[in-house]
Amino acid sequence: MPQLGFLHGRAWAALLGQLRRPPGAVCIGAVHSHSQAAEATLASQLKPHKEKSNFIIKTPKGTRDFSPQQMVVREKILDMVISCFKRHGAKRLDTPAFELKEMLTERYGEDSGLIYDLKDQGGELLSLRYDLTVPFARYLAMNKVKKMKRYHVGKVWRRESPTIAQGRYREFCQCDFDIAGHFDPMIPDAECLKIMCEILSGLQLGDFLIKVNDRRILDGIFAVCGVPESKFHAICSSVDKLDKMSWKDVRHEMVAKKGLAPEVADRIGDYVQCHGGVSLVEHMFQDPELCQNKQALEGLGDLKLLFDYLTLFGIAEKVSFDLSLARGLDYYTGVIYEAVLLQTPAQAEEETLNVGSVAAGGRYDGLVGMFDPRGHKVPCVGLSIGVERIFSIVEQRMKTFGQKIRTIETQVFVATPQKNFLRERLKLIAELWDAGIKAELMYKNNPKLLTQLHYCEDMAIPLVVIIGEQELKEGFIKLRSVASREEVAIKRENLVAEVQRRLS
Amino acid sequence: MPQLGFLHGRAWAALLGQLRRPPGAVCIGAVHSHSQAAEATLASQLKPHKEKSNFIIKTPKGTRDFSPQQMVVREKILDMVISCFKRHGAKRLDTPAFELKEMLTERYGEDSGLIYDLKDQGGELLSLRYDLTVPFARYLAMNKVKKMKRYHVGKVWRRESPTIAQGRYREFCQCDFDIAGHFDPMIPDAECLKIMCEILSGLQLGDFLIKVNDRRILDGIFAVCGVPESKFHAICSSVDKLDKMSWKDVRHEMVAKKGLAPEVADRIGDYVQCHGGVSLVEHMFQDPELCQNKQALEGLGDLKLLFDYLTLFGIAEKVSFDLSLARGLDYYTGVIYEAVLLQTPAQAEEETLNVGSVAAGGRYDGLVGMFDPRGHKVPCVGLSIGVERIFSIVEQRMKTFGQKIRTIETQVFVATPQKNFLRERLKLIAELWDAGIKAELMYKNNPKLLTQLHYCEDMAIPLVVIIGEQELKEGFIKLRSVASREEVAIKRENLVAEVQRRLS
Repeated sequence: MPQLGFLHGRAWAALLGQLRRPPGAVCIGAVHSHSQAAEATLASQLKPHKEKSNFIIKTPKGTRDFSPQQMVVREKILDMVISCFKRHGAKRLDTPAFELKEMLTERYGEDSGLIYDLKDQGGELLSLRYDLTVPFARYLAMNKVKKMKRYHVGKVWRRESPTIAQGRYREFCQCDFDIAGHFDPMIPDAECLKIMCEILSGLQLGDFLIKVNDRRILDGIFAVCGVPESKFHAICSSVDKLDKMSWKDVRHEMVAKKGLAPEVADRIGDYVQCHGGVSLVEHMFQDPELCQNKQALEGLGDLKLLFDYLTLFGIAEKVSFDLSLARGLDYYTGVIYEAVLLQTPAQAEEETLNVGSVAAGGRYDGLVGMFDPRGHKVPCVGLSIGVERIFSIVEQRMKTFGQKIRTIETQVFVATPQKNFLRERLKLIAELWDAGIKAELMYKNNPKLLTQLHYCEDMAIPLVVIIGEQELKEGFIKLRSVASREEVAIKRENLVAEVQRRLS
Repeated sequence: MPQLGFLHGRAWAALLGQLRRPPGAVCIGAVHSHSQAAEATLASQLKPHKEKSNFIIKTPKGTRDFSPQQMVVREKILDMVISCFKRHGAKRLDTPAFELKEMLTERYGEDSGLIYDLKDQGGELLSLRYDLTVPFARYLAMNKVKKMKRYHVGKVWRRESPTIAQGRYREFCQCDFDIAGHFDPMIPDAECLKIMCEILSGLQLGDFLIKVNDRRILDGIFAVCGVPESKFHAICSSVDKLDKMSWKDVRHEMVAKKGLAPEVADRIGDYVQCHGGVSLVEHMFQDPELCQNKQALEGLGDLKLLFDYLTLFGIAEKVSFDLSLARGLDYYTGVIYEAVLLQTPAQAEEETLNVGSVAAGGRYDGLVGMFDPRGHKVPCVGLSIGVERIFSIVEQRMKTFGQKIRTIETQVFVATPQKNFLRERLKLIAELWDAGIKAELMYKNNPKLLTQLHYCEDMAIPLVVIIGEQELKEGFIKLRSVASREEVAIKRENLVAEVQRRLS
């Protein structure tokens, strides 16, 4: 994966090693620790000199700011994800942060209560988007688009009980890739799985596994086991919890909360605890009851074809057919998948973070039709990368390895040892900026030279231009390499060219 | 400005010329026209085959989707803006889309009614952010950051009456650059104006002018004219309307709505209709009454210094001291500025779009202190680029010049003239993807060769790999240049290397 190829050695340690500042360097400027934030929230008051109204300075529950250090890491992750989406020919789309409330209603099953509504301030009733899939389907229907391969990177909002330790937030970023249109079966689906593999391999998060199932097989199983059709969605939601709950607890929910007969639940249990490779697909084909079910049979046939294509893509061994995978969202109609990281025992000890799934998706052939006035269907399949969880992992590793990040890109610092030299510095830095060079100076009339040089070392700025009275008289300027501390005198008129030469 | 230097010739025409496809090329895939969207909203129904509930498919009032074509242009604009912010040493920050409601209360004066509140669903009362400045101040106070140069690119939301023809939306993107910290006067302020000039010159939108004023001078004028101090903010808001309303109408508002004595309004009128260069600053220093006012005197002194620095930066002739400039927001405390595009008569005829200000900002030394529990102040100065308006201008120009944009980056298409060759195509394309090459194929078992080649021409994909039975047997593959239509046979094992060679 050459585009991600600057990643080598110990995964992100290597990536972030590129950004590391010299040992002992101190980060000046913003310092952002949670303990400080917590401190700030104590007994804080707004406008202490005017009113005495108490309030706490914080971000809303389940949300957070991203510091410059965090933004550097986030942008690296997003760049990698986006470059993969582009490698597969996707176009970028963007939609508003909120939708008409009715666009989101009845799309998310049991999770609909987690949608953020806007206050009715007169006019339309609005809700913050809950994912990027429903806005995509709305876009396709609204613009009568029949065929599109698009990606979308943006924030979504869910009123979940935030378990921040697990990397779950109420505001989080999604990176979605979807293929809409009528095509021959399983080709776009296989590409979605290939993309998940490329991204997870490229990010070097360690070994991973993609669980695959099909909603039609699940529905077939429910039918064969004797679940009434009206309860398919509810029972599917229960099965979806098998990654967090034991079968015993899920069974209890099915029986006690969802009113399923115990023997029906037990039959479901026999099925949904199965997982394996393509051989499990073959095995299921031998199930006489299940093969009476048209839906299940279609699902099994498609999975067989999917595994064939995955083998051609060289990723079949990363994929497991797992009958416990259900996916919570209501809109899936066919194949569904979810990627989980596999931790080695050493990692499990080293990292306390349990991140769960880091990418997921599936086929939703009915969603666009629900928006279309005439019900015209546009089959879709897609995936979503859980960048917040990936970010949590990377951030934790960086903490473990004590890695530092360069948050600015400044190439040249304009310094002086002289008093009253601000005007000369301003003229000089404007020249550098106008030549496209990234440059900074101290916002002081009379800064100390040592302070200026220390700043350059701390911020890993490679070059310093030093201007003084003597130099100005003789038409020369000193250029200092921060790493070697070597200084050379160059002609004032050659400055920009020389700086560009050294930076290239 | 070399980093923006790929812009030459007729401004954006040149930029977008790079992206142009061959004449006559037809864009397949998504087509997005407003008329289609309008059509879709007619008599549309949700779930026509289930319920008969009527609803209209649309985005919320004042918001819009961005098509892939629009996203390409937006990203180009944002890249340029961000590269300028980085050139000046800024770090990136991000904050949540919403804040605690009380964080935004009393920050925006008369415009506070335009804030979007979230529905009270239990828990905290929240509002969508109205700008990026207040979240920045909240961040600084919360984390006790005393010094920071940051940029922030993100969406903000305002419940304005949308005048879409003027490029005003209820959801829009802001690009903010701010410098926080105690520094010597006017150095960061001058850099902010330099940045505005670099961005507006770099985007080649035509000639522009930056109006500058100072809140302290305005307050001094109000005091000298006899405005009661309790009415300073209200009268300032009225002055702010001088770019859209005549002095007569503004005077009427001051007298009839805000209860100002007519003779006081007339005295204000004498001042706020003045504008000029640094000579006007000198002239105002001669005003005996105004110079009795400490605030006004400080403001004038700072403006004089500012013009000195702007001259050193080579941008003084782009800046005008304009006493009618007031800026609506409550939080400004010192110098304020706003950039407007100057249209030539020819442009005014050609472009019906009236875009108003395209960048603005100012000094706000009190905002952070309002959030800080002990009222500790962190002086700040910053600017915001109005990218939506810039985008409207560029989009309109592209329409005028009939320019096309390439929305995908695909480098190679994998094609076949043969039936039942899907498996070979899949194996081959996986090889390309794994080598980091941007590649696509048709999601069909048996696509027609002509359809495949037409797609490549339409989408300006430079290379086609053609694989057939004959080639497969002999271990060769055909590589076709789409532009020249030349085909060469190359060894299968050399394919990736040859493609990479041709693309580099």
